[in-house]
Amino acid sequence: MTAQTRHEMGPKERLVAGAMDLLHTQSYPSVGVQALCDLAGVRKGSFYHFFASKEDLILAALNEAWETFRADVVEPALLRETTREARNAAIRRSCHPVGPGPLATSSGAGCIFGRVAASITDSEPLLRARLAEIFTEWAAMLGDGGEGWASLADIQGRLLLGFTVEVPETVQV
Amino acid sequence: MTAQTRHEMGPKERLVAGAMDLLHTQSYPSVGVQALCDLAGVRKGSFYHFFASKEDLILAALNEAWETFRADVVEPALLRETTREARNAAIRRSCHPVGPGPLATSSGAGCIFGRVAASITDSEPLLRARLAEIFTEWAAMLGDGGEGWASLADIQGRLLLGFTVEVPETVQV
Repeated sequence: MTAQTRHEMGPKERLVAGAMDLLHTQSYPSVGVQALCDLAGVRKGSFYHFFASKEDLILAALNEAWETFRADVVEPALLRETTREARNAAIRRSCHPVGPGPLATSSGAGCIFGRVAASITDSEPLLRARLAEIFTEWAAMLGDGGEGWASLADIQGRLLLGFTVEVPETVQV
Repeated sequence: MTAQTRHEMGPKERLVAGAMDLLHTQSYPSVGVQALCDLAGVRKGSFYHFFASKEDLILAALNEAWETFRADVVEPALLRETTREARNAAIRRSCHPVGPGPLATSSGAGCIFGRVAASITDSEPLLRARLAEIFTEWAAMLGDGGEGWASLADIQGRLLLGFTVEVPETVQV
């Protein structure tokens, strides 16, 4: 997402931005087309002019979220942090928005990639395939082979547990 | 769950067993009362005779699932496996049912605790509180303080990633 404010966006961009917002606190099946349209100020009758399906919109939102997250969070953490633990913690903390916005609720706003992965089924093959690509690219950025996957599992596991409980930071085990 | 077959169970037990089945492949919002009743062979009009709400039934299912999982999976793995990696892998593999049953789908059937944690919101405070207790008890079984949480994060993170992608086993990093 650029620094564009919502009212400068077109309806298609507002739908994508709204989808990203909703997926921070809700799972895929609970985000409905009507709620997406309401948030974007788009009439429901126009929705299918912009996207073929809800899955199609969420796919666009995942793509937009990954571009932003990779450039604004993952790449800077790789440059800035010198240990695996510090890097993983920095990335994980960036998945918990802070501040006065609607995302900073007690729901434990978390990584939308993990949230969508945990809430789709065989009925959303496009989302599953795209998430597989995103996770594979992300793991490769975090380390070679198994080490990158271990870091990504640590990040995603702590975010998931964090939806319900305060997880203590870990000393190296 | 005991070795009771479904047709020997009463309707309340069948509702709980069916909820556990559905939550292996679906998220909390997509599991509806109608589907739960259909699976249990209970008329929808009778549902609220057994449970005050869907949340109330899912709470009972989480309790039943945790009792079984702790006794049949976590405790034996702690007794049998001698390394942290082997123990975590054994527990994780037990979250992926195998065999010809309806759970062994390509959806990547996963841990129902993680799936529910990732798909509830502020509207399900009872489930969130119970999951916090379950995760805290589970982490304490896996190790003292941060070490137990690191193991549980690894298990949950790999299960979540496994919904979309084949995650390679990791050498110790």
